[in-house]
Amino acid sequence: MQKQVEYAEAIKTKYPEQVVIAIAKDKDGKANPVTLGWTMIVSGAPPMMAIAVAKKHYSIQTIRHSKCFTIAFPSAQMADAALFFGSRSGRDVDKFAEFECETAPANEIDSVLLADAVANFECTLHSEAEAGDHIIFVGKVVCSHTNTEPKKRLYTVGPGHKLGSAS
Amino acid sequence: MQKQVEYAEAIKTKYPEQVVIAIAKDKDGKANPVTLGWTMIVSGAPPMMAIAVAKKHYSIQTIRHSKCFTIAFPSAQMADAALFFGSRSGRDVDKFAEFECETAPANEIDSVLLADAVANFECTLHSEAEAGDHIIFVGKVVCSHTNTEPKKRLYTVGPGHKLGSAS
Repeated sequence: MQKQVEYAEAIKTKYPEQVVIAIAKDKDGKANPVTLGWTMIVSGAPPMMAIAVAKKHYSIQTIRHSKCFTIAFPSAQMADAALFFGSRSGRDVDKFAEFECETAPANEIDSVLLADAVANFECTLHSEAEAGDHIIFVGKVVCSHTNTEPKKRLYTVGPGHKLGSAS
Repeated sequence: MQKQVEYAEAIKTKYPEQVVIAIAKDKDGKANPVTLGWTMIVSGAPPMMAIAVAKKHYSIQTIRHSKCFTIAFPSAQMADAALFFGSRSGRDVDKFAEFECETAPANEIDSVLLADAVANFECTLHSEAEAGDHIIFVGKVVCSHTNTEPKKRLYTVGPGHKLGSAS
């Protein structure tokens, strides 16, 4: 049976929620990673993925500048990196300089991959749309990569940025 | 270390993937549920959610007609309903007539809630955008509900529509 509640209460039932790290270069060529929980696949053929990025985030500028971005699925071992990339702003710091996280150049776009991620998807920017306090960026996947070792994906498993695996 | 692979191979790393059931009424007033894995929250204030619906699906017409829809988080016990609602078309059948699944009227929109779901979110249609073979519908959450009993959310836990809980 259902009971009406405040949205803030109801949305606590969303966990576990997948985590991705989106990466785009800014106008100075600095690759800027940001941790996001709001993401989905949006097309099968051609393959496309979407992310929702808070309007105040520096990543808005980096994605608009680059017109491309990487979507990485961090592994369950990458919780510390995900927390760091999600809690600092690329306006103030060079996140990859401050937090050790191995990267590799992307093949088809001007971005980087996360070497230890479960998978990386290189996306060209297809479109953007405004939605409340976020911008939805839709990317077309032009190149895909997986880890040579089997890894579990990282999830937010409960309120307060509690991270872990989900299976 | 990363290796380049086909997208179809890389995307197999996405599991577990959340499942929602979106419901909208058609022009005859028939509530039509569809099971979707491609969904995300897109705004915190105001609360908004998005779903990606295949262009060929009847739900495209029902959502455009109603200009509103419910997003339900099915419980882990609702796997059979999720499979049924995801494998039949509302063009051919009245899914709620053919598969027993208790509903309740929505409060703020002309749609229904799933009584046994973990949570239900009533959405008014904010916008839509084309993305490859799908349409992204963005809804503004105008009323929220949770189950009076604690329930676990349903997830797709592996390829081939393998469903279960994820924590």
